[in-house]
Amino acid sequence: MKVQSLMSNVTLKQGERIDDLQRNGLKIIQNSEKFCFGIDAVLLSDFASVRKGEKVLDIGTGTGIIPILLTAKSDGEHFTGLEIQHESAEMAERSVMMNDLSDKVSIVEGDINNAKELLEYCSYDVITSNPPYMIGQHGIKNVDEPKSIARHEIKCTFEDIARESSKLLKMGGRLYLIHRPFRLVELFNTLTKYGLEPKRMRMVQPYVDKEPNMVLIEALKGGKSSIIVETPLIVYKEVNVYSDEINEIYGYGE
Amino acid sequence: MKVQSLMSNVTLKQGERIDDLQRNGLKIIQNSEKFCFGIDAVLLSDFASVRKGEKVLDIGTGTGIIPILLTAKSDGEHFTGLEIQHESAEMAERSVMMNDLSDKVSIVEGDINNAKELLEYCSYDVITSNPPYMIGQHGIKNVDEPKSIARHEIKCTFEDIARESSKLLKMGGRLYLIHRPFRLVELFNTLTKYGLEPKRMRMVQPYVDKEPNMVLIEALKGGKSSIIVETPLIVYKEVNVYSDEINEIYGYGE
Repeated sequence: MKVQSLMSNVTLKQGERIDDLQRNGLKIIQNSEKFCFGIDAVLLSDFASVRKGEKVLDIGTGTGIIPILLTAKSDGEHFTGLEIQHESAEMAERSVMMNDLSDKVSIVEGDINNAKELLEYCSYDVITSNPPYMIGQHGIKNVDEPKSIARHEIKCTFEDIARESSKLLKMGGRLYLIHRPFRLVELFNTLTKYGLEPKRMRMVQPYVDKEPNMVLIEALKGGKSSIIVETPLIVYKEVNVYSDEINEIYGYGE
Repeated sequence: MKVQSLMSNVTLKQGERIDDLQRNGLKIIQNSEKFCFGIDAVLLSDFASVRKGEKVLDIGTGTGIIPILLTAKSDGEHFTGLEIQHESAEMAERSVMMNDLSDKVSIVEGDINNAKELLEYCSYDVITSNPPYMIGQHGIKNVDEPKSIARHEIKCTFEDIARESSKLLKMGGRLYLIHRPFRLVELFNTLTKYGLEPKRMRMVQPYVDKEPNMVLIEALKGGKSSIIVETPLIVYKEVNVYSDEINEIYGYGE
């Protein structure tokens, strides 16, 4: 019912749908032929700790899922989502309007490598990013496809994100990432190269007896070298059955 | 009975005892007032993968526990244990003789920082090390105590171990370490600085719901950046009850 009443405020384009985010009545516009948010965005929005009054930037926001979820999950003051793909940025903008969040969430279309022109350096308390996981363009059919751009380092590398995050964060600000465990060593080396010290890490395992396929990292601008490694987050307790913790993160347990 | 018959071959000094290693009839001489091996040495000897015919060095071997266990757990050709403390090195030497392993295990007394004089560069297939975990000498009462030297970076730093390991290993050789998770970022940065690429990592958790307190790392000299993160090793399934995997590693399950 609520979806329908909200739908009257926004225009959906061909192939688009509105999904319920199971939290505070929030909804998001997505196009399953282009790119839909996955569990990684949801896990990152839960792992990120945003305090009252803080200013947050999400790098590569896609359809705006992370800033939109963080308005419900935190007391942050303002959220900016940066997105390089016009179509995604425009969808994110419509989702922000649909949720009546225009005073709390801004969508900026542009390239992280132009951050200096688009955003203000040393101004964010928190940065989140669910960046492309795959190195380079190996094995990609079409480098212009939205899915390829979201998954592969076509438009920016992890080093671009670390370098610009370091400039965009205030001293003592935090960067929250989700990435693939196979890149852990490179992630740590790149973060510390730019003065972002990893302080907390949590592996995400599909099952209790399966190797992790995602890793959540918190890095502190100007932090001392010492990291807390948390117990892994287990996604499924059995086939097709989420663990209690995942149900809670998704808001299904409420 | 076997202990007593073996005891006749060796001389025990005051405070020393002989412990059964639960594997191939192996025993070790220890002095509980000085330093006894812990679960970390046992876990490292299990994590280290030594192939047939390989030449192995253990840096900071203490009473020789890792080379002695590896003679039973692997088909390695020869094992060298380097130890800076005279008393430990001498005890290790007696344990080697007691176990009739003098043809397979050599104990070298000396400082890793003199590796160039003591050992041959580019000659080892595998290096193992269970180094001091604690940074510097903060909070130590007596820097000459064997326990302090085994636990704190008094005689050598992790950087010393990484730098010399890189020189001592053949190209393609592997370094196996056990260390504390809070130093993970520094460990990775230091290893890669010396061309030792972490390729495999396993956290060790006291219980399934407790944060890890140890981490096992395999690094490859000249490896490409990409790491396999394994599921954590859980030590206890309940209070005072080892997990099945730990029982197997200790040989209690046999």
